[in-house]
Amino acid sequence: MKESWSSVDTLETNFRPLVVIELAKGTKEETIEWFTKRIVDKKANGGAQLLIKPLVTENGNENIYLVGASHLRLLLGAENVGLVKECNDNSMRAFTYSSRKTFKDFADDNQNFLTMSECQYIIKHELDNLRAKDEKMIPGYPQAKLYPGKSIVRRLLTNGILVQIFPLHDREELKKLRHTWYGQVKIGYQPLDEIRCYFGETIALYFGFLEYFTFALIPMAVIGIPYYVFAWEDYDKYVMFATFNLLWSTVILEVWKRICAVMTYRWGTLLMKRQFEEPRPGFHGVLGINPVTGREEPVYSSIKRQLRIYLVSVPFVCLCLYFSLYVMMIYFDLEQWALDYHEENKSHFSSLMLYVPSIIYAVVIEIMNRIYRYAAEFLTSWENHRLESSYQNHLILKVLVFNFLNCFASLFYIAFVLFDMKLLRQSLATLLITSQILNQFAESLLPYWLQKRHMKKMKERMHSLKMDTDLSLVEQVNSEKEMGTYLGTFDDYLELFLQFGYVSLFSCVYPLAAVFAVLNNITEIYSDALKMCRVYKRPFAEPTANIGVWQLAFETMSVISVVTNCILIGMSPQVNALFPDSKMDLILTVALVEHLLLAIKFVMAFVIPDKPRDIQIKLAKLEFESLEALKQQMFTESYSYLCDDMREQ
Amino acid sequence: MKESWSSVDTLETNFRPLVVIELAKGTKEETIEWFTKRIVDKKANGGAQLLIKPLVTENGNENIYLVGASHLRLLLGAENVGLVKECNDNSMRAFTYSSRKTFKDFADDNQNFLTMSECQYIIKHELDNLRAKDEKMIPGYPQAKLYPGKSIVRRLLTNGILVQIFPLHDREELKKLRHTWYGQVKIGYQPLDEIRCYFGETIALYFGFLEYFTFALIPMAVIGIPYYVFAWEDYDKYVMFATFNLLWSTVILEVWKRICAVMTYRWGTLLMKRQFEEPRPGFHGVLGINPVTGREEPVYSSIKRQLRIYLVSVPFVCLCLYFSLYVMMIYFDLEQWALDYHEENKSHFSSLMLYVPSIIYAVVIEIMNRIYRYAAEFLTSWENHRLESSYQNHLILKVLVFNFLNCFASLFYIAFVLFDMKLLRQSLATLLITSQILNQFAESLLPYWLQKRHMKKMKERMHSLKMDTDLSLVEQVNSEKEMGTYLGTFDDYLELFLQFGYVSLFSCVYPLAAVFAVLNNITEIYSDALKMCRVYKRPFAEPTANIGVWQLAFETMSVISVVTNCILIGMSPQVNALFPDSKMDLILTVALVEHLLLAIKFVMAFVIPDKPRDIQIKLAKLEFESLEALKQQMFTESYSYLCDDMREQ
Repeated sequence: MKESWSSVDTLETNFRPLVVIELAKGTKEETIEWFTKRIVDKKANGGAQLLIKPLVTENGNENIYLVGASHLRLLLGAENVGLVKECNDNSMRAFTYSSRKTFKDFADDNQNFLTMSECQYIIKHELDNLRAKDEKMIPGYPQAKLYPGKSIVRRLLTNGILVQIFPLHDREELKKLRHTWYGQVKIGYQPLDEIRCYFGETIALYFGFLEYFTFALIPMAVIGIPYYVFAWEDYDKYVMFATFNLLWSTVILEVWKRICAVMTYRWGTLLMKRQFEEPRPGFHGVLGINPVTGREEPVYSSIKRQLRIYLVSVPFVCLCLYFSLYVMMIYFDLEQWALDYHEENKSHFSSLMLYVPSIIYAVVIEIMNRIYRYAAEFLTSWENHRLESSYQNHLILKVLVFNFLNCFASLFYIAFVLFDMKLLRQSLATLLITSQILNQFAESLLPYWLQKRHMKKMKERMHSLKMDTDLSLVEQVNSEKEMGTYLGTFDDYLELFLQFGYVSLFSCVYPLAAVFAVLNNITEIYSDALKMCRVYKRPFAEPTANIGVWQLAFETMSVISVVTNCILIGMSPQVNALFPDSKMDLILTVALVEHLLLAIKFVMAFVIPDKPRDIQIKLAKLEFESLEALKQQMFTESYSYLCDDMREQ
Repeated sequence: MKESWSSVDTLETNFRPLVVIELAKGTKEETIEWFTKRIVDKKANGGAQLLIKPLVTENGNENIYLVGASHLRLLLGAENVGLVKECNDNSMRAFTYSSRKTFKDFADDNQNFLTMSECQYIIKHELDNLRAKDEKMIPGYPQAKLYPGKSIVRRLLTNGILVQIFPLHDREELKKLRHTWYGQVKIGYQPLDEIRCYFGETIALYFGFLEYFTFALIPMAVIGIPYYVFAWEDYDKYVMFATFNLLWSTVILEVWKRICAVMTYRWGTLLMKRQFEEPRPGFHGVLGINPVTGREEPVYSSIKRQLRIYLVSVPFVCLCLYFSLYVMMIYFDLEQWALDYHEENKSHFSSLMLYVPSIIYAVVIEIMNRIYRYAAEFLTSWENHRLESSYQNHLILKVLVFNFLNCFASLFYIAFVLFDMKLLRQSLATLLITSQILNQFAESLLPYWLQKRHMKKMKERMHSLKMDTDLSLVEQVNSEKEMGTYLGTFDDYLELFLQFGYVSLFSCVYPLAAVFAVLNNITEIYSDALKMCRVYKRPFAEPTANIGVWQLAFETMSVISVVTNCILIGMSPQVNALFPDSKMDLILTVALVEHLLLAIKFVMAFVIPDKPRDIQIKLAKLEFESLEALKQQMFTESYSYLCDDMREQ
């Protein structure tokens, strides 16, 4: 054991490249020199104390650098980011270097104690936290202002000097993962723990949720099939199906919280302390004093932001919603036209034409959603939120409202204005299936194809070897840096959210929706896995303890679906036949049932604990231990303090 | 400066009695000796290191002891319980003895840094945490078993050896407080900060809520008066009033959270860390290993508890609810009989008789509520909850459900089964006013009168001096130990909760309810203040950061009131006249409005932040500081660890 801060050297022989930094072509020498010096500089001097090596390709140095770190540096970094690991007694604890011997599988020569994605996360954290000392600007770029405490990497990124930072794939590991994940044809769970090890918790949690959600839909799908096969139009049966769906959707959302807690406890993120949130990269403002940190940093008036939100964003969103409704009305005109055409001609072609408006509308909806997405991102970024989380919340809210209306407005219109259940069923089916096909194509297959073509070209250019196996490091970096960047799980969750809407909002009209959802999700798992492994750069791992705002979104959807389903059932001719004399009784009954169902939902959500009992006990145990330790420490401190005090006299 | 743990002596001259311990008459000498020894024993020996003195009265020692503590001991105890105090830079921080100089108004000779109620809270905490070491039983009482870690005071209490522990009043302070609180006739705010200093946060928060709630009702009352004066029966006006009420009640509940956060931040309890919860005194079970603490303590199977809850408590509550409905039906029979009688006789007497059933019913309801309360307490205690918080939640749930049905079932019946708005208005008025009068009488005036009579007798017996001013310590202790014990804020909140129900559930039928509520609350403030200052023993201060489950209860009530008000408005003849052709359109409109109002409520609750911006910033600042400190500590630790490591080699 000879490690010390000074021995954490930058010239170790066993340099393992973990992260790639690509600087812009033509970056000035002095800038590169200063930046690399700051990266390798000792922690005590304000550096990151990492290892860095230029990647020398056949064309000479292309301003691409590989970053790594010594084993000890990574362990200290793990303590710094608050990584939680399993101990020898099977409890989960925050890793500290001084207590390292108590952790499972720890040995000073065991380089595998930290997974590669953890190492990369640590390096990213250290790079992000590399801060300006007394530099007033980035050397060589007087326009790139710095102030003490400003993250250097973020300034380099916003000024375009730093093109990208990304973690390297581990070809061996990836191959193994691909094989267990989607390489074999088998029915079974996904290897979530391996996914988490390779891609981090956020992505593993998405796949976990996708898998869970698919399994949870199976009962609905199974119950839904006979409705289609036997063409049941029986009142009791529909009511039962809808009631089952409504209660089931509450149960699955509550149970998910428990499963999520079990998973994230095992992964350690349930216990991870929240880090203090730094301003997001795009945030700008006049230099001022942050009231929280007391540091000098850009400050932006919250009133200005509110004005931007309420005077620009809200009206814009309303305008978009209006536009979306306008497009919907055009669709209904088209639909009418197609119907008229069919009535007149009654040909095979004309009956096919009946489906055309729906399909066109589905495509238009998808396109509008995507365009709006860009507008929403632009607007939210223009609102200049200080924190990434606040930016994300505003973006998600904007996108959710629009997507909800855009996707479901026509269905609401058909159901509650036109009262046309047949058309509703048909539209629902067309929308659901078209959007699923479009999504799978646009999200995974198209990028995969593009990526494959690109790889082929590149390989030809490099007149080189087999992919996957024998790529040299240079080739690997060169091929990966051209890959697309995975932009987070937002779109994937959004897709699931809308699917949940199709399944639950009108479940009593179209029980087959759940079947399509299940089928789609099974292929979705594979296409998303393909996307993660083959199409995109490896993303940095992001520790997370839950699916965040999406839980709320799904729960809101399930409340709305109680209302819609009750109305739909109330409108069905079979139910109407039960109240031949008085429409009033019917409506009152429906309203009563709706309120009862809502009440049951809330009671159920309240009664089912969010965490399983054993996790609760484990958490309580940790809390108890830390309180005990604190008490002990306080006792010793005041005791020692008083002893010192006596000695002085 | 000569303090040290050893100098925290039990024989100080400036002994200030803070807490009174009353042991049962005839307690064995050896028990008393052991108990007092444990109290004064050094902390290092597992004692509480407090001061204790017997109270010698004219009748000799009556097993009453006064407990106090040295100044240093109290400061160390303040650190131990995690007291939060204001620093010199106006921020709130957890007090530690080593950083004591940074706190506002601190001086080593300033005995007023801690308020008396804080000192008493600290002593209570230290006494509660006086734990058995290797004693197997309480000396002299073989049936009173002990095991290592068992709280001695709790065992003494459950075995009846310890009769009571209560904090002493501070006659001077109390007189000042009484004067500013209710001594002068003036319109103004209550001295909440002084109340908090004297009675602690839980009680101050109740009075704060009572005051806030009264102010919040004033707009409703003001708008309600002209409805009564001008006998407006106009549809638009009622709808407007109800809508205003519904949105207003959401706003006031949200704003309360903010006000509460401001208050508890100022008091320091918003920042106080939750202490680990020990089993409640009444909890019993077989000795086993607690999975959380790993300590040996009584363990009770959670399945057994669930069985008791679902097989006994739930059926019992249902039976009580049924009985309450049965009583209600008797009331309606009585009402009918009174009406018939009036029809037959048409005398002055008979028209008075019309009010009799309502008044009887109101009295019966109050009686049933009180009897049920005892049953609920017995049952919940029999359910054997381990934690006080869980006990409280189950008790509150039981009591709330029954009280809600008991108080409002007849009104619901009149409104939605009999459709008799006139009777509804009359019943509402009678119930509201009768219950208010009964409550004020039973809660404050009756005990006050009893107490006064008792004091008079005692004074006569002691053939002694003027009350309040010149009572000697012995007389003070003797008079206070006979006073009633304040059982917590439960009943006070419950009363407000039911009042809120009367005001909001049927607000569009009886706008005057708010006026009565305001009038009642103004006198309620005075009678409750009287109760706290003159009737009951001083209660121990209990730090708390919010009104807990009552916030949820009030919010639930405000959701229910949206439903009832919408139905009431829909039933009014004026609204019916607007939809002459179709009842269906009417009901659909009402349902739509109801859902819209509910949606607006939820959005409002979501949009209004729970804490004001400046409190948010202050909290963020503290969190940031502690994270920075942790980071710094970690850096130093790993650095020093590595230095040590090098030296060893």
